Amino acid sequence: MLDKTRLRNPRLFEKIVTPDQAADLILDGMNVATSGFTPSGYPKMTTVALARQIKEGKKCRINLWTGASVGKEIEEELAAVDGIAGRAPYYAFSNRSMQKGINERRINYTDLHLSHFGQQVHYGFFGKVDAAVIEAVAITEEGNIILGPGVGNAPIFVKDAEKIIVEVNTAQPLELEGMHDIYIQEKPPRRREIPIYSVGGRVGVPYVECGLDRIDAVVESAVPDQVRDLAPPDDKSKQIAGLLIEFLKSEQKSGLLPPEMLPLQSGVGSIANAVLSGFKDSAYTGLEMYSEILQDAVFELILLGKVKFASGCAFTPSPKVLKLFRENAALFKKSIVLRPLDISNHPEIIRRLGVIALNTPLEFDIYGHANSTHSMGSSILNGIGGSGDYMRNGYLSVFATESTAKGGDVSRVVPFAAHTDHSEHDVMVYITERGVADIRGLAPHERARRIIKNCAHPDFQPALYEYLERAEKEPGHIPHDLKNAFKMHCAFQETGTMKNIRF
Amino acid sequence: MLDKTRLRNPRLFEKIVTPDQAADLILDGMNVATSGFTPSGYPKMTTVALARQIKEGKKCRINLWTGASVGKEIEEELAAVDGIAGRAPYYAFSNRSMQKGINERRINYTDLHLSHFGQQVHYGFFGKVDAAVIEAVAITEEGNIILGPGVGNAPIFVKDAEKIIVEVNTAQPLELEGMHDIYIQEKPPRRREIPIYSVGGRVGVPYVECGLDRIDAVVESAVPDQVRDLAPPDDKSKQIAGLLIEFLKSEQKSGLLPPEMLPLQSGVGSIANAVLSGFKDSAYTGLEMYSEILQDAVFELILLGKVKFASGCAFTPSPKVLKLFRENAALFKKSIVLRPLDISNHPEIIRRLGVIALNTPLEFDIYGHANSTHSMGSSILNGIGGSGDYMRNGYLSVFATESTAKGGDVSRVVPFAAHTDHSEHDVMVYITERGVADIRGLAPHERARRIIKNCAHPDFQPALYEYLERAEKEPGHIPHDLKNAFKMHCAFQETGTMKNIRF
Repeated sequence: MLDKTRLRNPRLFEKIVTPDQAADLILDGMNVATSGFTPSGYPKMTTVALARQIKEGKKCRINLWTGASVGKEIEEELAAVDGIAGRAPYYAFSNRSMQKGINERRINYTDLHLSHFGQQVHYGFFGKVDAAVIEAVAITEEGNIILGPGVGNAPIFVKDAEKIIVEVNTAQPLELEGMHDIYIQEKPPRRREIPIYSVGGRVGVPYVECGLDRIDAVVESAVPDQVRDLAPPDDKSKQIAGLLIEFLKSEQKSGLLPPEMLPLQSGVGSIANAVLSGFKDSAYTGLEMYSEILQDAVFELILLGKVKFASGCAFTPSPKVLKLFRENAALFKKSIVLRPLDISNHPEIIRRLGVIALNTPLEFDIYGHANSTHSMGSSILNGIGGSGDYMRNGYLSVFATESTAKGGDVSRVVPFAAHTDHSEHDVMVYITERGVADIRGLAPHERARRIIKNCAHPDFQPALYEYLERAEKEPGHIPHDLKNAFKMHCAFQETGTMKNIRF
Repeated sequence: MLDKTRLRNPRLFEKIVTPDQAADLILDGMNVATSGFTPSGYPKMTTVALARQIKEGKKCRINLWTGASVGKEIEEELAAVDGIAGRAPYYAFSNRSMQKGINERRINYTDLHLSHFGQQVHYGFFGKVDAAVIEAVAITEEGNIILGPGVGNAPIFVKDAEKIIVEVNTAQPLELEGMHDIYIQEKPPRRREIPIYSVGGRVGVPYVECGLDRIDAVVESAVPDQVRDLAPPDDKSKQIAGLLIEFLKSEQKSGLLPPEMLPLQSGVGSIANAVLSGFKDSAYTGLEMYSEILQDAVFELILLGKVKFASGCAFTPSPKVLKLFRENAALFKKSIVLRPLDISNHPEIIRRLGVIALNTPLEFDIYGHANSTHSMGSSILNGIGGSGDYMRNGYLSVFATESTAKGGDVSRVVPFAAHTDHSEHDVMVYITERGVADIRGLAPHERARRIIKNCAHPDFQPALYEYLERAEKEPGHIPHDLKNAFKMHCAFQETGTMKNIRF
């Protein structure tokens, strides 16, 4: 029940409407922007009502803008009733109707670097923000919005929105208040530096500036974020984590990383989770994270003193970690800051702080190009997200993944990436459970041998060497045989396996 | 003849050696780093002597590091005698022996974003800077180095070098003194912001700090930079320039660019030159440039009052413009600043100032991926240079090129780029002489139709539509038919033309 701890100005109570009344504000063709980042801090009431209205006959297809993927109450519900015309800037495969809609091209999905989208919306490149739907922990007396655990692009959306719907969610702990540092950059040519010089630097305010008058509707919510507990790391993930931590240690030993270590960024998923878990058992203490999303393991690392500070644009508390958070709120509040997405992922800060970028590719080629997004170059699994922001601008950029997929039938190391999200110019190190390929300063033909030798699975090494040697019969800085560049991919499409290919 | 206007401390005269004596300091296997950026401000004596020594039997293969391409006295002379083992961070096709060595993989060339290389050298990722060979206009009383018109990575090379050879070139005008703004960033985690807030902002000193004791040799030079006059723009380039300027005007009209305009970056080459020339005849005045290299046209634009300030890491004065520079030195000195490459190309500044990035791709695909470097995916024509620094971080990112090459046999618009330097996430607008494809906010299948319709040459439109439609028979966010993705490229390799291809 909403009380004055959540709505801190009496006028706000007059703005309370039902989800249906809020959904009435959303009309066909609108650009609708929401808070949230992965299943964290996204609104859960208005879009469910809207989806029901559409099912009951309301003609409404919206363009849905978010921070990243959001929960099923938005993506799945709306996509299932064909309520989404356009989508940006990120999508992940967890919501099947959305995936289907995008791959069938009924939903026009634009995949963007996450640090770019808020800025481009603010510049007007995507048109007006017709409505912002924001999940809040509370609304202040002045009408400013205290966000949940997922900031995403909410600050810019609120700044630019014509209509504002705030879902105040009593399932989000009030202890979140004070964890946010909300800062919006001016547009060029009046833009200044972002004065963040350390992982924990604070430059903004702990709420999204809005004002009572701009809030059109308040919706009560008590639905928790839909976060699942992550499975414990498997053996291969543990091997990868071990190799990565050894690599970082050797970099420090040879003086290429400073003894005090540099801030870590870590992508999402099982490999990232294994890497973070790996730090639990390492000798490292007092680490810092400057990342996009803070997964469960970060909370355990903070409790263990392994991580002293973490900056992100969201955290995704599983039920277990949400409990941990409530029990140790004071510790976490002084050890975590939540920033807008365009600040957490900003090249200026990533490069200044010297962030070590750790991400997971879908596949990569022998010359070092990485595909983060499109299976066989076509079907999207997930968007590029912030991987490009970090990999391009990181002090060190590392991609780590298993050497195979689909039970061993697919090699993640291929002659030619079927989609290039990160070029050869953007990646320094590849790691699989087979080993580490440090490709800094190598020419393409040297990289190829190191990647095949150190990272490819033995089932595919002979074919990859054959491709390379065949291509090397001709001159060329990057030896390629375009006729056969996708032979492994085509074999998989035709036979279900990349095995037994010869060039 | 070197006098005290050029060598401002008597001790410097004692350090004068012959080019051969300087070349004696360079030994087999060394990492040798030079000043200069394109044929501008590079040393011209020591490497010529070294090449002769090698021809006469000295065993010496070096790793050559620069700002970008440099003149034939370095690249051509040394490559012709097999004196180069490794090369970074940029190469352009003008020096044929270098091109041959790289494509035959005798020279191990690493292609990098230009904003990355100096930093990575400074971090130690490439090993020690064994020797720096720097061209100077003069050396100050304190032993600090006043550079020529090409800064490149000279400041970081000097800072990190074990041996320092300075070629003082009397053919470089003394009026260059005062045009440089040399600033070196701290390494993380002690790095601060770069306090540049306007195109003309100055944050450093007008010389490279070095000190008398660190200078091992001074070599006298009087050889001008080898810069050719650019040919006047042809009709297609003029059409492209016209379309681009119209596009910028319409962006301002619709409020997507501010009325005061934003700083321009422009790549090199004939299209870039045509675009700059196009501004001469436009209504624009008081423009600003925040760019990598300042071509001839910039000087004319400054004289006309069309450009009020230009920032770059080098300018390449043709004989004609060098004369213009000497006659108007006072005006140019107050209108131009020369910065280190890692500052001219730094994401922090490019994004802060809201630079409009204009570059030329080699080819691009229907989904918006661009190839800047490798013909048919293999043979390098030139490195990626700074195009990635600007395209990724620009307020607006525009690629402009002719729709065809090789007398019309090659389409620059293809189904699948044979090398991806810039992904779909990095480019907003493509322009050819056929028209403008603004692909902001579009899904891939929408982009494809707009690019084919607006940018592809009619000779290739039917084939490109066929590819798209064939690929669209299957679901997929980015419709591709991997078996036929490079069919046009393969046809060119086999028959010398991409024409008459059907899918």
